[in-house]
Amino acid sequence: MRWIAVFFATLALNAASAQVPSAPVRAIAPFCSPGGVVCVSVAIDGDGRASYSVSRLGAPVIAPSRLGFMLTDAPKIERGLAIMGSSERAFDETWEQPWGERRLVRNQYRELSVAFAEREGLQRRFAVVFRVYDDGLGFRYEVPAQDGLATARISAELTEFVIADPGEAWWIPALEWNREEYLYNRTAIDAVGLAQTPITFRTEDGLHLSLHEAALVDYAGMNLSRAEGQRFRAMLTPGVTAASVVRDTPFLTPWRTLQISDNAAGLAMSNLILNLNEPNALGDVSFFEPMTYVGIWWEMHLGQASWASGERHGATTERAIRAIDFAADNGFGGVLIEGWNVGWDGNWFGNGWDFSFTQAYPDFDLERVAARAQARGVQIIGHHETGGNAYHYERQMRDGFALYQRLGVHVVKTGYVADAGQAQGEGPDGAPTMIWHESQAMVRHQQRVVEEAFAHGIAVNPHEPVKDTGLRRTYPNLVSREGARGMEFNAWGQPGNPPEHEANLVFTRLLAGPMDFTPGIFGMQTSSPDGVATTWAKQLALYVVIYSPIQMAADLIESYEANPGPFQFIRDAPSDWEESLVLNGEVGDYVTIARQERGGADWYLGAITDENPRVLETPLSFLAPGRRYRAHIYADAPDAHWRDGRERIVISAREVTRADVLTLRLAPGGGQAIRFEALPGRIRGS
Amino acid sequence: MRWIAVFFATLALNAASAQVPSAPVRAIAPFCSPGGVVCVSVAIDGDGRASYSVSRLGAPVIAPSRLGFMLTDAPKIERGLAIMGSSERAFDETWEQPWGERRLVRNQYRELSVAFAEREGLQRRFAVVFRVYDDGLGFRYEVPAQDGLATARISAELTEFVIADPGEAWWIPALEWNREEYLYNRTAIDAVGLAQTPITFRTEDGLHLSLHEAALVDYAGMNLSRAEGQRFRAMLTPGVTAASVVRDTPFLTPWRTLQISDNAAGLAMSNLILNLNEPNALGDVSFFEPMTYVGIWWEMHLGQASWASGERHGATTERAIRAIDFAADNGFGGVLIEGWNVGWDGNWFGNGWDFSFTQAYPDFDLERVAARAQARGVQIIGHHETGGNAYHYERQMRDGFALYQRLGVHVVKTGYVADAGQAQGEGPDGAPTMIWHESQAMVRHQQRVVEEAFAHGIAVNPHEPVKDTGLRRTYPNLVSREGARGMEFNAWGQPGNPPEHEANLVFTRLLAGPMDFTPGIFGMQTSSPDGVATTWAKQLALYVVIYSPIQMAADLIESYEANPGPFQFIRDAPSDWEESLVLNGEVGDYVTIARQERGGADWYLGAITDENPRVLETPLSFLAPGRRYRAHIYADAPDAHWRDGRERIVISAREVTRADVLTLRLAPGGGQAIRFEALPGRIRGS
Repeated sequence: MRWIAVFFATLALNAASAQVPSAPVRAIAPFCSPGGVVCVSVAIDGDGRASYSVSRLGAPVIAPSRLGFMLTDAPKIERGLAIMGSSERAFDETWEQPWGERRLVRNQYRELSVAFAEREGLQRRFAVVFRVYDDGLGFRYEVPAQDGLATARISAELTEFVIADPGEAWWIPALEWNREEYLYNRTAIDAVGLAQTPITFRTEDGLHLSLHEAALVDYAGMNLSRAEGQRFRAMLTPGVTAASVVRDTPFLTPWRTLQISDNAAGLAMSNLILNLNEPNALGDVSFFEPMTYVGIWWEMHLGQASWASGERHGATTERAIRAIDFAADNGFGGVLIEGWNVGWDGNWFGNGWDFSFTQAYPDFDLERVAARAQARGVQIIGHHETGGNAYHYERQMRDGFALYQRLGVHVVKTGYVADAGQAQGEGPDGAPTMIWHESQAMVRHQQRVVEEAFAHGIAVNPHEPVKDTGLRRTYPNLVSREGARGMEFNAWGQPGNPPEHEANLVFTRLLAGPMDFTPGIFGMQTSSPDGVATTWAKQLALYVVIYSPIQMAADLIESYEANPGPFQFIRDAPSDWEESLVLNGEVGDYVTIARQERGGADWYLGAITDENPRVLETPLSFLAPGRRYRAHIYADAPDAHWRDGRERIVISAREVTRADVLTLRLAPGGGQAIRFEALPGRIRGS
Repeated sequence: MRWIAVFFATLALNAASAQVPSAPVRAIAPFCSPGGVVCVSVAIDGDGRASYSVSRLGAPVIAPSRLGFMLTDAPKIERGLAIMGSSERAFDETWEQPWGERRLVRNQYRELSVAFAEREGLQRRFAVVFRVYDDGLGFRYEVPAQDGLATARISAELTEFVIADPGEAWWIPALEWNREEYLYNRTAIDAVGLAQTPITFRTEDGLHLSLHEAALVDYAGMNLSRAEGQRFRAMLTPGVTAASVVRDTPFLTPWRTLQISDNAAGLAMSNLILNLNEPNALGDVSFFEPMTYVGIWWEMHLGQASWASGERHGATTERAIRAIDFAADNGFGGVLIEGWNVGWDGNWFGNGWDFSFTQAYPDFDLERVAARAQARGVQIIGHHETGGNAYHYERQMRDGFALYQRLGVHVVKTGYVADAGQAQGEGPDGAPTMIWHESQAMVRHQQRVVEEAFAHGIAVNPHEPVKDTGLRRTYPNLVSREGARGMEFNAWGQPGNPPEHEANLVFTRLLAGPMDFTPGIFGMQTSSPDGVATTWAKQLALYVVIYSPIQMAADLIESYEANPGPFQFIRDAPSDWEESLVLNGEVGDYVTIARQERGGADWYLGAITDENPRVLETPLSFLAPGRRYRAHIYADAPDAHWRDGRERIVISAREVTRADVLTLRLAPGGGQAIRFEALPGRIRGS
C-alpha cells in the first residue's frame, strides 16, 4: 500500500477530519526576468507538494520539479504545504571586481520570494527565493528560525531539475565524491549517470543549459542523480553523520543555478553565478596581484625530480634561486616551489600526518630563497599540500601563513590529494573522521583557510578543492582553483587529456570560475602515450582561453630558454582583464575568446580546437574604434598536428583595425594566440 | 594533482622505498561452474586494485569490475592489495522446502574463495567467495576479525558490475529509498538511473541477466548507481550514521547475485538466490499452512469503508463473521481483517505512534470473531500496520503476537506505510531516528519481527517490506511480502497498473521471491481511470503466474457470489506446489507458467499477456505420462479486451494428455487459467 492510497481512501471518508495534510491547489503565475526572457512558475499540488518550473521565451526549459528536504530526525518536508504568501523585488547594479575576467559586472534581476508552510503537524516554514535573470536563474531555500525546526539535519534535498527537452549532456561522474579530475562524458541527457556540477546540456533545438550552484557556504556540495528519464535530483555529498548537512535555523542554502543561452558562447559569457554571491566581505585585497608564475613543479611530474628528500629532491635552494632569477629576468611575478617542506617522504596520499607547514627540508634555505625573491622583486608562491588531512592542517595553518607573511608571500597553493579527506569528527572524542572532498565539513574547512589566509595578507589557490561556486566575489583572496584535469595528466604514464579536453572545460568546469590549469608546455614528449596532445600554438592560446588571475608558465626553464619565439607570448600575456568576449564556440569542439588587458589598451585572442581542424573567420570589431594595432600572431603551421607536428608554429605580425576580419586556421589539436598591440596615434578621420 | 601522479612520480624515483602501496599484478584463471557454463576470473592491477569478471560459454558477461569498501573512519580498502591465496570446493545437494514453488531444490555449485590483504599500512584482510552455478553466480565479502579492522563502518561498497554487452534494462528507481512501489522503466542499459534490485537486463545478443542480492542480514540493502556507460556501482541504503553499515569483524556481506540465462524463462526458473541463503534455522514451521484467504480490505481501497473508526468502519464484528463464514463455505484458509485495532484515526502515515497492537476498536469483538473462526476452521490473518514506526512497534510486538497466538492466529500481515521509518537511534539518548526502508536498522528490525513471530508460532507477510533476498529458506515463517505495486494501485483515483505490469513483475521483482499481490478482482470499475486493466481470465491466471504461499482472493464477497463460474478457479487453485515450470515468456510481454499441486496430481497453468494479444502454442508434455486429465479452461472470449471486454470469459472443459498441444489465445491485457484435473486410471498401453 502507499500513502496516496491512504490519502484517497481517507479523504473520501473523512474529508472533514483533515487527518491527512491537505492544501488547496494553488499556483503562482509566471514571474519573469527584467527582459521578460526567462520566467519561473510555482505550484502546489493536491497533496500539498511544492514544485517550480522554468520557461524561456514561452518555451518550457524545466518541467515542473519538486522542492523539499528529507531529514534524519523528523518527517520530510514535502507534503501538506501551502503557499502562505510571496513578495517580489527588482535589482540592478554594476559592481567592480578587484581582479577578474572583466572589471565591471552588471547584476540585474527580478526576485520572487515564496513562503511555504506545513498546514498540519510541525507546521514548518521555509521560503524559496528565485532570482531571475535574462540568462538564467538561481533559487535557494531560506529556512527561518522556528520551534518545529531548531536544527535541520538534512539527509537529502528533494530539489529536482526536470529538463523539458531531449538533448545531449557533458558531465563528469560523482564516484566517491573524491575529486573533479575526470574526463568528460558526452551522452544523451537521459543517459547521464550520477554527475557532478557544473553539468552542461544542449537540447535538440539548440538551447544551451548549465546546472550548478552558487555560494556554497556551510553546506554540502550538490551532485545530480538522474532518477528517471530527464529528471535530475539534487544529491548532497555525504557528511560525517547520517545528515549531509546540519544547520541550525535560520539558514540559507546555496543557490541552485540554471544558466540558459541560445549558444555555447552565451554560457561562457554569463555572470550569473558570480552575481548570486554576496559582495566582497573582506575589503582590500590589493596585497594580491594577478600574475604569471613559474615553478619547481613540472620536473616532478616528469619524474626528473622528487617532492621527497634525497639526491633528486626538486626544491633545493639552488634550483629555487635559479627559478627566481628566471622569473625576474622575464617579468613573471612569482615562483612556486613544491616539496620545500618536511612530510613528503612517507605515504602522504590521503594521509598527510607527516607534513610540516613551517619546517623546510635541510637542502632548502627558506630565508635565503625569500631574500633573493624580494631582492629580485619576485614573490614566492607558497605551497601547502595536506594529503586531504584538513584536521592536521588546521592545527598548523596559522603558523604556516604567519611564516609566509613574514617572508612576503602573498599567494599559497593548497592541495588535498586524497580519496577522502579527514576532519574533526562529531563524536565526543572529536577524533578525525574521513570526509568527502565536497562535504559540509570540507566546505567549512576551506572557508576557515580562506579567512585565516586573509588575516595574513595571503591569497589561496586550492588544488583538489571544493568546486568553485563564485565565492571569489565574497572572498576575493580565493583567487583560483584546480578542480578539473590539469596539465599534469599529460605527464604520467597513462592516457593524458585528449585534444577536446580544453574545449570541454570552457563550457563546463570553467563556467564555475578560474582554473589554475598550468599551461605553456613546449616539451611535448612525456611518459604519457600521447604526451601533451596539443600544438604549441594551442598551448599559447590557453593563456587567453582559460581564465585565471594566477597563471603558470608550467614548463621547465630550459624549455623556455630554448624557444624564445613562442615564449614571448607567455611573457606578454596579462593575467587580469578589463573585458572578456567569447567570439564563437561549440561545447567540446572549439572556442575563440578575446580579452582586453586591464589597465591597458592591448587585446589578446585565443582560439583552440579539438582533434578537428577549423577555419574561423573572426571579425576584429571588439578592437577600439579609431586605433591601429599590431597583431602578433602565433599560428599553427599548415602541417601542424597534435600528433606529429606540435612544434610547427608560425609567428608573424601585421597591422589591423577593428574593420579587419582574420581567418584563423587551427590544426588538429591546434590553436592560435594573438596579441593586439595598440599602436600610438589615431586613425585619420576617426 | 591525483594519486596516480604521486604513484608514478614516486615509483619512478623511490621504487625501492615502497612508499606507495604496491602489489605484483596477479590473476586467478577462470574458475567455472559445474557444467563449465559460467566462469569467474579475479585479478590485481599494478596499483593493487582487485577486480573480478564473469564469462558465459567463453563470452564476457561482466567486464572487469572493482571490489572494495569505503569506510567513514579509515582509508578505503581498495588499493595496495595482494592475493594471499585461494581455495576451491564443490557442492551438490538437493533440499526440500517446507512450502514453496517446488518441493525439491538442487543446489549445485563450485566455490572459489580468494584471500586479499593490504601489503602496507593497516594490512587489512578480507576474502571474496564466489559460488558459481551453471545459471549464474553469487559472491560475498568475508571480513575476518583483525586488529586493523575491529569494526567496519562502511560508507560505501565499491563493488561494481560492468555489463559487457549493450542491451535493455527493466528497473525501478531508488528515489528516497522508501519503497519498491514504482512502475518499471524499460531503457537502454546505459540509460538506467539510480536503480533498485532486482534489475533485469537483456543484451543485444539475447542474453538475460538479473542483478540482485541474497541473504540480506544485518546489512544495508544494495541499490545500483550507474557511474558511466554500463558500469554499475553498489550503492548501499543510507544508515543512521554516516556509515550505511556498521559491523564488528568478523562478518559476512550479503551475496551479490547475477542470474544468467539464454531466455527470460530461465531467469524465472532459477533457484540461485534461494540456494545462496542458509538452510532452515528455525526448524518446524508446520504451524503455517499455505492458503488462499479473503479479507476486509478491498472495500477500504474502493472507499466503501474505512480503516478509521466511525460509521463506515470496515472491521466490524459482523463483517468479520460474514467473511469467516464465506471463507469456510468456499474452502479458504483465512480472513484478513484490516483496521481492527486502535490507531487509524490520526495521520498514521509515516507516524504510527497511535497504533495499539492489542486493543481492538469497540465495534470489533476480537474474542468473538476468533471463536467463530476456530469454530468454522478458518484462521484470522492478523494485521500489524506500523506506519513505518519500527521503534514503536518493537515495544508492543511481543504482546501483539502473544495475543494472536492465544487466538490461534498463525499468520500476520505487517505494514510499513511511510516515506522513512523510525528506529532506535545511535545517540546516547537512543531517541528514534528516521531510517530508510532498506537501511541496516530496518533490516535488523524485520529480522527481530520474524524471530519474535516464530516464538509465537506465527508467520509474517510484510508489506512495504525490506526487499526479498531469499531469506524464506532460512526463516520459513517469512512466507511472503509485498514489495512492488500490488492490486490496490488499481483502486485509487490515479493511473493504476498497466496491462504489462504483471509480465514485468514475473521477470523482475518476482525473481526475488513470493509476492502477496492480491489478485482475483472481478469488479473492474474503480476510481482509477482504467480501473483494473486486465480481463477476468487474466485475474484467474495470476493465481498460477504470481507465486505466493499466502494468496488473497481480494475482491468483495458480493463480487464472488455473483460470479460462481470464474470464482470456481480461485476456489480450486492451490497455494503450494510440487513443481513449477515456466513454459515460455518475454520480459514485460507475456509468460506461461505451469505448476503441479503439492501432495496432488493436478496441474495448473496460467498464461498472461501485456496490452498485446497472443496466441501461444503450449505442449502439455509437463503432464504425467500415462494419465488423462480434465482441463478446466478459463479463457478470454474472442471479443475480450482489457479496456472494454474484461468480463468476457469462456469456461470450458476437455480431456487432454501430455501428448496434446493447447493453443492459448490471450486477448489484449488478457490471460488464460487452466486446471488439469488428474482423472483416475491409466491410459491403456502406458
